Amino acid sequence: MRMVDIIEKKRDGGRLSGEEIGFFVQGLVSGEIPDYQASALLMAILFRGMDEEETRILTERMEHSGDTIDLSSIEGITVDKHSTGGVGDKTSIALGPLVAACGAKLAKMSGRGLGHTGGTLDKLESIPGFRVGLTIEEFVAQVNRIGLAIIGQTSAVDPADKKLYALRDVTGTVESIPLIASSIMSKKLAAGAKTILLDVKYGRGAFMKTYGKAEELARLMVRIGNGLKRDTRAILTGMEEPLGLAVGNSLEVKEAVESLHGRGPRDFMELLRKAGGIMLLQAGIVKSEEEGERRILQAIEDGSGFRKLREMVLAQGGDVSYVDDLSRFPLAKKIIPVMATRDGHVSHIDSLEVGLVAMRLGAGRAKMDDVIDHSAGILLRKKVGDTVKEGEVLLELHTNAEDESLLERSALESRAAYEISDEPQKAPDVVAGYIAS
Amino acid sequence: MRMVDIIEKKRDGGRLSGEEIGFFVQGLVSGEIPDYQASALLMAILFRGMDEEETRILTERMEHSGDTIDLSSIEGITVDKHSTGGVGDKTSIALGPLVAACGAKLAKMSGRGLGHTGGTLDKLESIPGFRVGLTIEEFVAQVNRIGLAIIGQTSAVDPADKKLYALRDVTGTVESIPLIASSIMSKKLAAGAKTILLDVKYGRGAFMKTYGKAEELARLMVRIGNGLKRDTRAILTGMEEPLGLAVGNSLEVKEAVESLHGRGPRDFMELLRKAGGIMLLQAGIVKSEEEGERRILQAIEDGSGFRKLREMVLAQGGDVSYVDDLSRFPLAKKIIPVMATRDGHVSHIDSLEVGLVAMRLGAGRAKMDDVIDHSAGILLRKKVGDTVKEGEVLLELHTNAEDESLLERSALESRAAYEISDEPQKAPDVVAGYIAS
Repeated sequence: MRMVDIIEKKRDGGRLSGEEIGFFVQGLVSGEIPDYQASALLMAILFRGMDEEETRILTERMEHSGDTIDLSSIEGITVDKHSTGGVGDKTSIALGPLVAACGAKLAKMSGRGLGHTGGTLDKLESIPGFRVGLTIEEFVAQVNRIGLAIIGQTSAVDPADKKLYALRDVTGTVESIPLIASSIMSKKLAAGAKTILLDVKYGRGAFMKTYGKAEELARLMVRIGNGLKRDTRAILTGMEEPLGLAVGNSLEVKEAVESLHGRGPRDFMELLRKAGGIMLLQAGIVKSEEEGERRILQAIEDGSGFRKLREMVLAQGGDVSYVDDLSRFPLAKKIIPVMATRDGHVSHIDSLEVGLVAMRLGAGRAKMDDVIDHSAGILLRKKVGDTVKEGEVLLELHTNAEDESLLERSALESRAAYEISDEPQKAPDVVAGYIAS
Repeated sequence: MRMVDIIEKKRDGGRLSGEEIGFFVQGLVSGEIPDYQASALLMAILFRGMDEEETRILTERMEHSGDTIDLSSIEGITVDKHSTGGVGDKTSIALGPLVAACGAKLAKMSGRGLGHTGGTLDKLESIPGFRVGLTIEEFVAQVNRIGLAIIGQTSAVDPADKKLYALRDVTGTVESIPLIASSIMSKKLAAGAKTILLDVKYGRGAFMKTYGKAEELARLMVRIGNGLKRDTRAILTGMEEPLGLAVGNSLEVKEAVESLHGRGPRDFMELLRKAGGIMLLQAGIVKSEEEGERRILQAIEDGSGFRKLREMVLAQGGDVSYVDDLSRFPLAKKIIPVMATRDGHVSHIDSLEVGLVAMRLGAGRAKMDDVIDHSAGILLRKKVGDTVKEGEVLLELHTNAEDESLLERSALESRAAYEISDEPQKAPDVVAGYIAS
């Protein structure tokens, strides 16, 4: 078998066989297939697509391109979730403890932030001492003991995805639905959980710009997951604005803790309730999504969700006094309010812009080796649907940066992220769709 | 400027600017742009195409990616020709001396054979002592002195094409008309001649499978060349069968010499006359193609063409006794006749198949470092239009190979290259089209 023949077959609109896809994935990981052939195939796939069967096979081959995590020794149903990446998305930090408090087992591998989106690992590391680098044995043991662990993906898991992802990023081949689906699903499958809930974002600030495209991606991933014998479901969530009010690492951890106390922003609380309800149904703990949602609300009310977060922080070496007393998290040296320049109603907040400003203030990375300032970020004071008056605070910039021109530019750009309309606006529903099978 | 943005622009159907194309070509040659980004762009170009302006710019940037040959010190009009590659194509070896004998100056850089097509340099090297590695100074001086030189392309000329060609070959991006056009034209422009005649082959054995595709390529190249101030014309020649009777290095040199004596095969003689006529018109030596054709016939008749070949062989260190006495060329140890198995009329000879059999018999290279056997090849005894009887010789295999199974397979495959019909067949015209501007 020759790689050039595989490239030409796809270029000419052919269907790749299991053998051909396997040859590609194996050669990619072993280094026998050079990057320049891999990138030519990726571009041909971008133009010609792959059908569901090809995508399923690619996913499976990528899943098995390295180690897979064996969670079979964990008692009960292991659940997992994945979000396609949002600004202000601290969901796992609150949702994990809530579903674990209700009896599901969450063994989650997360990522780091890059560009305008943050990463769960970076956020958790704003709790002093918190270790995300457990061994697989420690990881499994912790989930068995307390029902919950969140760690970094080891480099031995899904090496094909790591290579493809890096290549797609620099060759203009990111935006292919079969390649996105196989990248996400192969990692989730390799991570070993029995059930998977996908949170597919759509809108101007998201990777999928329209509901239709997000739904296409979600349906494909759900079919692939179920075809490979995992209960896979998806919710579609809008990104007409960042999720919640906090963007930035410790700011988001604090908001997640407040949410576990029942004091979180409306949109984030809605997401926790709905996603949690589905995950509990997937885990076989409840009989319906509605029953699951009631259990999640109860775990907030009775404090069991918060206690589960404390248990995880303790188990992973974090200083639990920070989650007990949120005022212990250091504040950034500068907190700069940004005011509205007109009266009106907030109709849109550009998440991409907010994420990029937060990144430049120190909350994120432009390149993979940039150092993160855990206290930096943005705190929104107004959300879509809110009424504002000229001079009222729209948001706060939190930063330790000294560069005055950066601060000035950040104020202008974050203000420009707000669209303010004369007409009253409705606060949007967060969860706009649910694909159960 | 970032390469990934250039890739994405083309992927989305955009037009690349001169700056972007220049950035790509320069980065490719300097090594700053990695091969995996180059191949992704090539695949995007294959799908999205390039308009004439983009192709012209790419051609020009490639032309100037390395040294260009300055032929301005040569008195008279320098002419050049290029064929897109045919089986049995020994045209330059006879045509060069003919046009030089008529007063044009041919300063030609040629290539080596790879796969089923042979290369002019390999053919010339079957004359003992013949040197294709002249310096540029020797090359220019020889053309000034005798009007003719054929050498190998130096590595300093058009390095962008060398890199792109190697990459296209292994990434399924060969079959793009703008990429083919810029590859051919950038080399020809860098080689410095004032006029260029392109011989674009079409048919089953050629790179362009249909007349229409060949015409599209030819028109594009002619417009690019004329746009860059060189008198560029093209002929379209059919490849319903190999050109002439001889396929293989010394076999083809002998046929070229015989043709200079007026004893060549009908199709090859037609090509020499027509192509030569156009080149003399381009050189300003005659007033019409017809007048040019008459001059070519005269140079055959009066022996001046043959004498010019002798001069070139002498000038480039070759043993001229071989061209004076063709029986000096060593014959292969085995000459194996292949017979027809039925009566009929030859309707097609698969050039690709004939070229591949000749290559395996020793006449060509499967890989760039294979060694060539100059005496190996195939001599056709029947051409399209000929009548054959069962048991009559169709062709001869010339080889020094010992492997009996290879010989057996070669006999079967070369016989299968002949299509024999019950209906009488017309011998095809070789030159089927002419694009003068």
